[in-house]
Amino acid sequence: LSAAAQEVAEIPAPVEDTVQRLIVAGSTDDVGLTFTEDLTTRIGPRLAGSEAEARARDWAAAELKALGFDSVTIEPFTIPYWNRIEESASVVSPAPQPLTITALGGSTSTSEGGITAELVRFSNMAELNAASRELVEGKIVFIDEKMTRTQDGSGYGMAVRKRRNCATATIDKGGLACLIRSVGTQTARFPHTGMMARGEAEGAGPAAALSPPDADQLTRLMSWQPVTVNLNIQVETSPNAPSGNVIAEITGRETPDEKILIGCHLDSWDLGTGAIDDGAGCGIVVGAAKLIMELEEAPRRTIQVVLYGSEEVGLLGGHAYAKRHAADLSNIVLAAESDFGADRIWRFDTRFSEAALPYARAIQEALQPLGIAPGNNEAGGGPDISMLARSGVPVVTPQQNGWDYFDLHHTPDDTFDKIDPADFRQNVSTYAAFAYLAAEMNWSFRKDETALSSE
Amino acid sequence: LSAAAQEVAEIPAPVEDTVQRLIVAGSTDDVGLTFTEDLTTRIGPRLAGSEAEARARDWAAAELKALGFDSVTIEPFTIPYWNRIEESASVVSPAPQPLTITALGGSTSTSEGGITAELVRFSNMAELNAASRELVEGKIVFIDEKMTRTQDGSGYGMAVRKRRNCATATIDKGGLACLIRSVGTQTARFPHTGMMARGEAEGAGPAAALSPPDADQLTRLMSWQPVTVNLNIQVETSPNAPSGNVIAEITGRETPDEKILIGCHLDSWDLGTGAIDDGAGCGIVVGAAKLIMELEEAPRRTIQVVLYGSEEVGLLGGHAYAKRHAADLSNIVLAAESDFGADRIWRFDTRFSEAALPYARAIQEALQPLGIAPGNNEAGGGPDISMLARSGVPVVTPQQNGWDYFDLHHTPDDTFDKIDPADFRQNVSTYAAFAYLAAEMNWSFRKDETALSSE
Ligand SMILES: [Zn+2]
Ligand SMILES: [Zn+2]
Ligand SMILES: [Zn+2]
Ligand SMILES: [Zn+2]
Repeated sequence: LSAAAQEVAEIPAPVEDTVQRLIVAGSTDDVGLTFTEDLTTRIGPRLAGSEAEARARDWAAAELKALGFDSVTIEPFTIPYWNRIEESASVVSPAPQPLTITALGGSTSTSEGGITAELVRFSNMAELNAASRELVEGKIVFIDEKMTRTQDGSGYGMAVRKRRNCATATIDKGGLACLIRSVGTQTARFPHTGMMARGEAEGAGPAAALSPPDADQLTRLMSWQPVTVNLNIQVETSPNAPSGNVIAEITGRETPDEKILIGCHLDSWDLGTGAIDDGAGCGIVVGAAKLIMELEEAPRRTIQVVLYGSEEVGLLGGHAYAKRHAADLSNIVLAAESDFGADRIWRFDTRFSEAALPYARAIQEALQPLGIAPGNNEAGGGPDISMLARSGVPVVTPQQNGWDYFDLHHTPDDTFDKIDPADFRQNVSTYAAFAYLAAEMNWSFRKDETALSSE
Repeated sequence: LSAAAQEVAEIPAPVEDTVQRLIVAGSTDDVGLTFTEDLTTRIGPRLAGSEAEARARDWAAAELKALGFDSVTIEPFTIPYWNRIEESASVVSPAPQPLTITALGGSTSTSEGGITAELVRFSNMAELNAASRELVEGKIVFIDEKMTRTQDGSGYGMAVRKRRNCATATIDKGGLACLIRSVGTQTARFPHTGMMARGEAEGAGPAAALSPPDADQLTRLMSWQPVTVNLNIQVETSPNAPSGNVIAEITGRETPDEKILIGCHLDSWDLGTGAIDDGAGCGIVVGAAKLIMELEEAPRRTIQVVLYGSEEVGLLGGHAYAKRHAADLSNIVLAAESDFGADRIWRFDTRFSEAALPYARAIQEALQPLGIAPGNNEAGGGPDISMLARSGVPVVTPQQNGWDYFDLHHTPDDTFDKIDPADFRQNVSTYAAFAYLAAEMNWSFRKDETALSSE
C-alpha cells in the first residue's frame, strides 16, 4: 500500500463521543443477552421449516415490537423441509457395540431396520474420489478426515467438503451409505450434523456423522478385523414448508432509504438449542440496535436488523431476501451478519472500494478500545449476505474468535451456558459502534461497479 | 504424632534398586495401556450381567493367560440384571423441546409412552425430604443440586445421595418419577447414569438424570412458567444373570499364601466404553503386575490381580469375593483397587496399624520420584475392597487426580481417547512399585484385631 492508502477518515468529535458511549453501554448489555437466552429457552431448537421455527419468528417479531423498533415485518417464503425421525448405528461384528451418530441434513432414509454392510475406510474425501468402484460397491463408506482448529474458522471450508459430497460420491460408486468423522474440532462424544449437498428435499443417499471417539473406535477396530455396521436412518421431507425472515428497523432521521443491515439467522439445527449458532448472533445485533435506539436521536441512515430464516439448509433466507429486495440492494450502504458464536471479536475485516479504505481505518481505530485488530479488505460478511456482497453491497466481518466454535457447532452441546456474557457484550459494543458510525456518517463504501467482477 | 512416629522403615538397597527400576519401566508401559485400549475397543461397554460383560471376562482371562500369569481363574456369581431399553423426555409445555436424559440404574419403567406431569423443583435432596406430600403428589420431582469439583473426589459422596434416594423419597410422597441434575461436574450435554438405591432388581420408581444444560434449561423455564414434562423409560430386568471375577496370580517365591491384592472392576456402564471407569484401572493393575512378572525372580509373596465383575450395580463382585474367600482374608497382606481414572497419582494414603506407619513412610518415600505426596492413614482402598478393609485387611489408596473425573464418569463420553498415556504410565509405575515392595519385604501392616472396630 502506498502512504496515501494509509489515510484515515476523520470522525467529528460528537460522533466519536457517541461511538465510545455505545461501546461502554454495550459492556453492560442485557437486552441482547436476554434475547439470546429467551430464544434458546422459550423456543429451543428451531429447525428450518419446522413449527418451532414458526414459533421463533412470531416470538421474535413480538419481542422486537416490544423493544420499540419503528417497523417489524415478517417476510415469508417456503422451503423444502427435512427432519430426522430416527437414527442409530452399531457395530455388528467383530465387537457388537452401539455407535453415536447423527444423520446429515438432506440424508435419505435407509430401509427399515437399517443397512448392514462392511465398512470401507478412507482417510479423506480425495481418497474416496480416487477409489475404484470395486472397493466401494455394496459397502458403507467411512471417511475419517480430521478438521484443523483455527482462530478464523478457515479449517471449515476444507473439512466441510466430505459432509457435502460424501453421499453423492459413495452412491456414484455403488456404495450404500456414508459415515463421516464429524466436521468438528473436539474429542467429546458429540456428532455434528449439518447440511449435505442435495438436489431438492431428497438427498443423494443415507449419510451420517460419527462422534470423534466413535470414528477413533472404528479405526481401531478396522486395524484389528473387518468391521460390519448397521446404520438406520429414517427421515421425513415435504416440498413447501413455511419459513421467513424477520426484519426490524430504526428509521434513519435524514436518509431513511439508506440502510445499514446487521443480521443473524433465526433457525438452528435440531440437536442443540442453537445458542452459539446462531441465537448469539441474533442477540448481538438486536442488543446493538437497541443501544442505538436509545440515543437522543436516530442516526441519519436506517438501521435494519434481519433475522434470517432457514440459513442452515442452504442460506434460503438470504436468497429470499436478495430476491425480494433485488430492486433496491443499492440502498444497502453496508451489511454484516453475526454467525460465528459470541467469543470476543479479535479482528475487523471489510470489503470496501479502495477509495473507502480511509473509512475502514477510521472504523478500526474507533474499535481499538475493544481490543480489535485491523483486518483485511476481503471480508465475506456472513452466509446470508454473501449474495448481497456478490451483488456489490459493501460488507464487514467482525471476526469472532472461532478457536472453540467447532467444538460445539451443530452438536447437542450448543446450549446457552456455553456463551460467556463478557465476550458476548464485547460483540454488542462492536456491532453498535460500527453500525452507528456507518449510519451517522456520510460515507460510501461501495465500488463504482454495481457488482463485483470475479466472485 | 510423636517424633518416634516419624520413623521410616529401611528398604535394603537391592530392593530399592528394583523399585526404582520398576518405576522407570512403568514410564514406557505398553502392556497396561494396550489392555485398556483393547478392553474398551474389542468389548466396548460392559454392563453388569450382560453378554458383553461375559465376553469381557473371557477376553480378559485369555489375555492374562497370554501375558504369562501363573494362574488365571474366573469365579462366577449371579446378579439381578437391569438394562435400559428406551428412554426419552421432553418439555410438553410451555415450550415444546426434547431433553437429554438417561435412566438411573435400577429405575422402573414408566407406563408405555411415558408419564406426563408438572415438574416440582427442589434445590437439593434435603429440600425434597422436607417437602409436604401436597407439593409432590402427582408431580415429577426435579432435583437441581450441583456437585462440587474437588481433586480427591470428596464432592461425590454428598452429590450421590440424590441419585440413590430421589426415587424412593418421591414415591413415598406420592410423586410419579424423579429427574436429577446429573451427578457430575461438567457443563457438556451428557447425562450421567449410575445406580440408585433399590431392593432387588426392581427399583423404587422411574428415575433419570438430566444433562447439566438441560437442568439449567428447566430451571430457566420454571422461572418463567409452570413446566410439564413427558418422561418415558422402559427397562428390562432378570433375577439371576451371570457375572464373575477374573483372578490372575504371580505365585510368591517364598510365602505364596500371603497375597498382595491389586484390583479394578471389569464391568462398566453402558453409555460409554468404560475407559476411565474402569478400563483404566484394569490396565494399570495388569500393566503393573506384568512389570513385576518380568523381574529376575518373583517376589516373596503372591501378587493377585482381581478384575471384579458387577461393581457398578452394588459392588457385587467385591461382595462375592469377600464371601468366597472369607476363611482366608487374613492371608491378604495388602489390598488396593484402582477405580478413579488414570490421571496422575498425587497422594498415597494408607490404612495400616500404628506400628506399621514406618512401612507406610518407606513406601511413600520410594514413590517420591513419581511426584506423589504422603497422605493420611484413613485410606478406603476402593469400592470392591471396602468390605475387605472392614474385615481388617490393610489397604492403600494411591489417589488419582480426580479434578476432571466427574466430567466423564458414567457418561457416553467415557472413551479411550480421554486417557493421557503419560499419566496412565505414572499409575502403572506406582502400582508396580508399592505392590512389589509389599510383596518383597517381610512387613505386616495389619492391626492386632482381625476386624477394625468402628467401620
Ligand atoms: Zn450459523
Ligand atoms: Zn450452522
Ligand atoms: Zn468404577
Ligand atoms: Zn462407576
